[in-house]
Order: sequence, then structure tokens, then C-alpha cells
Amino acid sequence: MTVAMYPGTFDPVTNGHVDIVQRAARTYEQVLVAVANSDSTLFTTEERTQLFSDAVADIENVRVISYSGLTVDAAQMHGARVLVRGLRAITDFTAEFDMALMNRSMAPEVESAFLMTSVEHLYVSASRIRELANFGRDCTELVPPNVVVALQKKFPDR
Amino acid sequence: MTVAMYPGTFDPVTNGHVDIVQRAARTYEQVLVAVANSDSTLFTTEERTQLFSDAVADIENVRVISYSGLTVDAAQMHGARVLVRGLRAITDFTAEFDMALMNRSMAPEVESAFLMTSVEHLYVSASRIRELANFGRDCTELVPPNVVVALQKKFPDR
Amino acid sequence: MTVAMYPGTFDPVTNGHVDIVQRAARTYEQVLVAVANSDSTLFTTEERTQLFSDAVADIENVRVISYSGLTVDAAQMHGARVLVRGLRAITDFTAEFDMALMNRSMAPEVESAFLMTSVEHLYVSASRIRELANFGRDCTELVPPNVVVALQKKFPDR
Amino acid sequence: MTVAMYPGTFDPVTNGHVDIVQRAARTYEQVLVAVANSDSTLFTTEERTQLFSDAVADIENVRVISYSGLTVDAAQMHGARVLVRGLRAITDFTAEFDMALMNRSMAPEVESAFLMTSVEHLYVSASRIRELANFGRDCTELVPPNVVVALQKKFPDR
Amino acid sequence: MTVAMYPGTFDPVTNGHVDIVQRAARTYEQVLVAVANSDSTLFTTEERTQLFSDAVADIENVRVISYSGLTVDAAQMHGARVLVRGLRAITDFTAEFDMALMNRSMAPEVESAFLMTSVEHLYVSASRIRELANFGRDCTELVPPNVVVALQKKFPDR
Amino acid sequence: MTVAMYPGTFDPVTNGHVDIVQRAARTYEQVLVAVANSDSTLFTTEERTQLFSDAVADIENVRVISYSGLTVDAAQMHGARVLVRGLRAITDFTAEFDMALMNRSMAPEVESAFLMTSVEHLYVSASRIRELANFGRDCTELVPPNVVVALQKKFPDR
Repeated sequence: MTVAMYPGTFDPVTNGHVDIVQRAARTYEQVLVAVANSDSTLFTTEERTQLFSDAVADIENVRVISYSGLTVDAAQMHGARVLVRGLRAITDFTAEFDMALMNRSMAPEVESAFLMTSVEHLYVSASRIRELANFGRDCTELVPPNVVVALQKKFPDR
Repeated sequence: MTVAMYPGTFDPVTNGHVDIVQRAARTYEQVLVAVANSDSTLFTTEERTQLFSDAVADIENVRVISYSGLTVDAAQMHGARVLVRGLRAITDFTAEFDMALMNRSMAPEVESAFLMTSVEHLYVSASRIRELANFGRDCTELVPPNVVVALQKKFPDR
Repeated sequence: MTVAMYPGTFDPVTNGHVDIVQRAARTYEQVLVAVANSDSTLFTTEERTQLFSDAVADIENVRVISYSGLTVDAAQMHGARVLVRGLRAITDFTAEFDMALMNRSMAPEVESAFLMTSVEHLYVSASRIRELANFGRDCTELVPPNVVVALQKKFPDR
Repeated sequence: MTVAMYPGTFDPVTNGHVDIVQRAARTYEQVLVAVANSDSTLFTTEERTQLFSDAVADIENVRVISYSGLTVDAAQMHGARVLVRGLRAITDFTAEFDMALMNRSMAPEVESAFLMTSVEHLYVSASRIRELANFGRDCTELVPPNVVVALQKKFPDR
Repeated sequence: MTVAMYPGTFDPVTNGHVDIVQRAARTYEQVLVAVANSDSTLFTTEERTQLFSDAVADIENVRVISYSGLTVDAAQMHGARVLVRGLRAITDFTAEFDMALMNRSMAPEVESAFLMTSVEHLYVSASRIRELANFGRDCTELVPPNVVVALQKKFPDR
Repeated sequence: MTVAMYPGTFDPVTNGHVDIVQRAARTYEQVLVAVANSDSTLFTTEERTQLFSDAVADIENVRVISYSGLTVDAAQMHGARVLVRGLRAITDFTAEFDMALMNRSMAPEVESAFLMTSVEHLYVSASRIRELANFGRDCTELVPPNVVVALQKKFPDR
């Protein structure tokens, strides 16, 4: 059974992230969303984990966890054979490749696989979502419904 | 069971191609190498299929076929849920992404997944192999042993 | 009055091309689609010009012409102050920029402006359209209705 | 009448920025330079607005304003139909395209148009100007005369 | 003494090529321009060699030769320790890097060094020169004087 | 005699940096490693200079110095005719080119030359080394032996 891990900060989870999880879940037996611990985020690690968990609750072979430390260490601990990364057409692919090569040098048995988001999620990034929410813009079409609610709580006066 | 198809011209198969097949075979249940029919190649479709087949004979869950027409049609015919593409750090990623988007528009249920070759195969491409063989250069470290023999037969006087 | 020229081979015109014309027509007073003369095309220059002309017949401030020779010469002859180029996210921007710099060196008073196609046209290129039509694939959602008909006539047996 | 807005931080305005304004002013009826409010700049918003205003005082159809909040909101408020962005050959085009797609998703009626700076401004960026001025280097050929004076006041001892 | 080889097709030599030779001649003891033998060029190998030779006749430590076969073989035969490549800001750097890695794998003792053309030669490529000359355009500012004459002889009726 | 300067932060020096020095030392008479003064580094300027100095102690024509201010000023002060930069296949080449053009505008007589690291150092960057060491990972194969020791002292409890 191939376990695929999908690591990231997910601050917060967007429809683009959910799209990648759905694609991974169709081709790997088990998908493990791994939310990286971080202090410099808008949402706490617990919030980010919960938000992603709720957003993919209806996909059977997906689980959401949080982790600290190196991504490859988390992958090995959870028996993941694949690290999934989502590519937007306009991703900084260079940085992705760089990280994947470094990960491979540390854990050669963990493969990196790049999947593509659908075109309608091309321009959706978590940092833009935070910027939009900060300016009081509606994000209904860009993030899952539970994240819309969470953003409104974070920025109540916009 | 997830069948992953690895399409290409493979004129001829290189160690980089074999490397991608090995990586795919570790994460997908079944890998189908699909050799595209073409007249404008150094080796015939039959030769290219045979060379790849011999080169991966020892990997259990891999089969090599040839196909004509659109790649996504071949994928659907063989029940492939994933199209695997190999990335070299210096691949023309733009062209890859373009093709993957077009394929998705025609066959949304077939996912594209990009895997990375190992760094020692970074500079190995089939077109360079043909160029080297044409100039009588030894390709022993760049292609499987059976391809070394086949290249020597194609360019006997070099 | 600013005349904007949109040059290209348009073999054949796609929905992405029409999208760029619509965007240009909203920001420039007059848009001149300029179909480059060429022998190595699927459709003749006359056919390509007619197909584009019919596809944008309902946009008032657009005219379609054909031209031979250098693009900047055609621009100067028709009094165009701007050369419009369409960018797909995954365009080879380097080649575009290169050509634009060369054009500027020859005709400094003609500006180059890059507009973006809508995301649903990201993967539509004339060369892929020809490939699809050649394999008998339906292109209804990728090209204007008159081009669908023209492609079926070119490839009647598919 | 097409109003084109040219948004940016302009900390400070460079000859490259002025070059883009001149190009835009030749192809659009009205050009609105929009200086983004920001606290983390070398020059205050007022200073940056004044510096740009003085630098383009001789171009008739150009006005300089400052704005807060989202760029597309400012564009809509001022009736701008086009957002102009300057491209240096070596711009991070990916980031530009990303932002343009996001802007389009929020304000589909506002077009993004990319213009090219002249080659002699290829290497001029506001951040490098600040770095040079900080090290006491002469910036006379890189920024308008009024900015040379302003930089000398900011870094009197260099 | 470090001999640097500058290989290429040079069909024909441009001011950009001469610029690179001048830069190389300032940092390496000996520069060897190596004109690749080829049948599919506008100018013959002899013509291309002669044109380059005349264009750099006044630089003391430069010699121009022609060669057949692999570039690295020519480098080794002539004792070149460095392969010089010229970069335009908008070069296809990926292809350059690819070739350099392949060359290194075949001749590890031959280093590749990339130098930058000056910005005024950014948009000058031999293929555009041929296109311009074919359309009867003046190339005086883009190529050495002897090449202007040679182009006029090739395209007498333009 | 050509003096080549290799400037950088080197926080800390990696095997990739040493590889570039070795390559430069084979093609230039004198190589000057120039460690940029900076407060925001893990190691002090003195430490970084010493670490690099020890790592290349066995290469005869190499010296290591530290410098403050603009890189081109340091180059001119030390009589360097060439600035050497190392390229990893996946370097941000755009930023490199940008900086090189700016340097040339300030000091036209100082050439920039880009050399390539060997493929096994592709994924080694100083920032990743710091990250790995911070997580207690072994860096033995990525940095010189003296840097391994220095990192262990910086992160004793990992």
C-alpha cells in the first residue's frame, strides 16, 4: 500500500490544496496531509490542521496530521513512500525542484511526485487569501466554506 | 489498482528513462511504458519497444507496449489512471505543463504526475545519445547495455 | 486614435486568439488583426484571414488583414502604434521578449503590449488544434464554430 | 477614453519607471500613476508621490496619486480600464502573471497590459538604487534629477 | 597559459559575438573562436570562418578556426581548458546548461564559462540577422562592416 | 595576470563553493574568495572567512579575504578583472544576471563569469545547510570537514 504525504503550511487551506488532495486520493491508497508546525502563521498549527481536516472530511482515504522538524523525517515516521507537491502553472518550480532534490539526498526511498492543480485554482495561494481577507474581500470561491467562516472571525471588522 | 502509463518516443531508451520507470514501479501497482509510434526516429517502433522491454525485464510490475494516436486515448484504452512524466532539473517544464493541461482537458480522469530523475541522469537525453553515437562516442554509462549494442549496430563505422 | 495590431500566423484562429482580440478591442480604439503570409501552414493565408475575419465579425472596432514581410513594416504601413501579443501563463515569454526587443530596435515608435488570455484558454495553441483535428478529436470548445467546420473539411476521414 | 493605471511602490521612482509612463502615455489617453501606501519604505508615501509627480510633470496626460488597499479597488474607483506593468527582460514574470490573474479574478473588467522598459533600464530597480545610494554611489544616470537630490538628503554622509 | 575556446555556428558573426570575444580576450591568454562545420547554414563554413576572422583581426590573442565533430573533441585537440559561451539576458539558459553538463561528462577537464553580452546586443541573434537581411533591412548596427557587405551579396535584390 | 574574485556570504562555505573555487583556480592565475561583511548571518564574518580559508588551504593560487561595501568596489580595490559566480542548474539565474548587469554598469572593466558546480552539489545551498544543522542532521557529505565541526559547535544539543 502506497502512502502519499502532502506537506505544507496551509495557512489557510485553499480550494487549490483540496483539489490536489482529491487528485492524490484517486491515485494513491492513502493520503496523509501533513501540516507543518510554525509560529509565524496567521492561524495556529491546531487551527490549520482542523481547517484542512474539516475541508477533506468526506474523502475516505485522507488523514490530516501536523508535524515538526524536517519533512522527510515526518514522511519516514509515517511510512510515506511519496511526497506530493501541487504545481500551479506559475509555481516557482525551481524552488520545488531544489527542495525535492535535497529531500531525496536525505531520504532516497521517499519519492517526490508533482501533481497539477486545475486551471481555475491557478492564481489561488494562501498568501493572497490572507491579503484579500485582510482587505475585507470575499473569498467564497477560493477557499472551502469552513475557511470562509474562519477568515471572517480573524478579520471581524472588514 | 492504479495503472501508471509512461509515454514517450524513447529513441532510444536511456538510463534516465529506466530510472523513472524504477521510481514509478515503487509507487504504482502497475507501470505501462508506452512507446509512441513514429516514422521520424532512428530506431523503428518495434526496435524502440524491444530495447525498452529488455532494459526493464527485471522489474516485475512493468510492461512495455507501443501505441499510435493521442496519448490520452492510449491511456484510456489501457485503463491508466496516471500519466507519468520524468523531469530533469533542466527540463523544459513549460512544454510539459502545457501538454499535461491539454491532456487533462481531453481526459479529466487521467492524472499527470511528474517524477524526478536522479541527478546523475540530468544531462542524458535521447537526442544527445544519438548525437554521441553518431560521432562514435562511447555511451556505456548513459544507456542500458542492450542499447549500447544496438547503437553500435546502427553506427558500425564510427 | 491608437491603432493596435495583433500579428500572428493563426493556423487556425483559436478561442484564445479571439479572447485576446476582445480584450484589445476594449482598450484600444482600433484593432487590426494581421495574418502573416506563409506557405508552410495547414490553411492558406486567404483561408486563415477569412476564418479569423468571420470569428470576430461581431466586434465593431476590429479589422482583419494579411501581410507579408516584417511585422514592424506592416505596423508602420497601417499606422499601428501598438503591437499586441497574447500571453498564456505558460508561454515561452523569452522568445516573445526577444522578438519585441528586435521589433523595437527597428521601429522605436511602435510599442509592444502583452495581454493575458483567460485561464480556460491556457492550453489552447494552434499547433495542438491541428494535432487534435488530425486525430479526429472534437475541437468544439477550443476554436470558433466556423473553424470547427473548416477543420472537418481539412480532415474529412477522421 | 481609456484610463490606464500604473501601480507600484516606487521607492523611489527610477528612470525605468518614467520610461514606462512615457510609453503608456503614447498609447493610452490618460495615465494614472498610483503610488501604493506603505510603511516599510525608505521614502514616505507623500515623498514617493511627490517625487514621481515632479519627474513626469512635463507629460500632459499623466497624473500621480497615492492609494491604500487593493490595487483593483483603486483601479475601479478611478475608472481605470487597464493596469500597466513594466517588464524588464529579467523581471520575475511568474510573480507578475500570478498577480495579474488574481487581479482579473477580482475585477474582470480591468485588463492587465505589460510594457517593456528600454534595454538601458534593464538593471535599474528601486531596491538597487537604495543600495547604491546607501553606499554613497552616484545614481545620476539611473533616476530623475529630483530623485538624485532626494537620495542625497536621505544619505547625507555618504 | 589558459586557452579559451568559443564554439558556435556564427551564421553570420554578429556584433554580439564580437563583444563576447573581446570580453574573453581580456580575461584569458588565448581565445580560439571555433566555427562548427555545418551544411544547413546560409554561409559556408569557409565563409563563416573568414567573416569572423576578419571581424576580430585587430584583437591580438584571438584566432579563428573551423571544426567538425563534437565540440569537446575540438577543445581537447586544441588544448582549450575553457569553453566560453555568451549569454544574452534572454538566452535559453536551460539549453546552455544542458549542453555544458553533457560536455563536462565527456571532458571533465574542460570548464564551461558563461560571459554576458552587453545590453545593446541583447536582441541580436544570427537567425534574426538572416531574417532581416532576407527582407532587405539594413543590419549596419548589428553586425561588423564586412558582414554587412557579405549579406548584401547573398541577398542582392533586396 | 588575471585575478578572479569569488564574492559571497558563504554562511557557511559548502562543498559546492569549494568546487567552484577549484574550477576557477584551474582557469585563472589568482582566485580571491571575498567574504561579504554582514550582521545577519549565523557565523560572524571572521568565522566565515576562517572556515573558507581552512577549506581551500591546499589550493595554491587562492586567497580568502573579507570585504564591506559594494562588491565592485572590492573587486577594483584588489585588481580583480573577473567576478566569478557559481551556477547550480536550478539557480535563480535571473537574479544573478540582474546583479551582473548592475555591477557592469558601475565597473565596466570587471567581467562577470559564471561557472557551473558539479551535479552532486546541485541541491547544496548554505541556507539548507543551516536548516539541516538546526534539525541535527549530519552534513558530512555537503560541507568541508572543518565546517561539520563548526556546525556541531553552533548547534551542540541537536
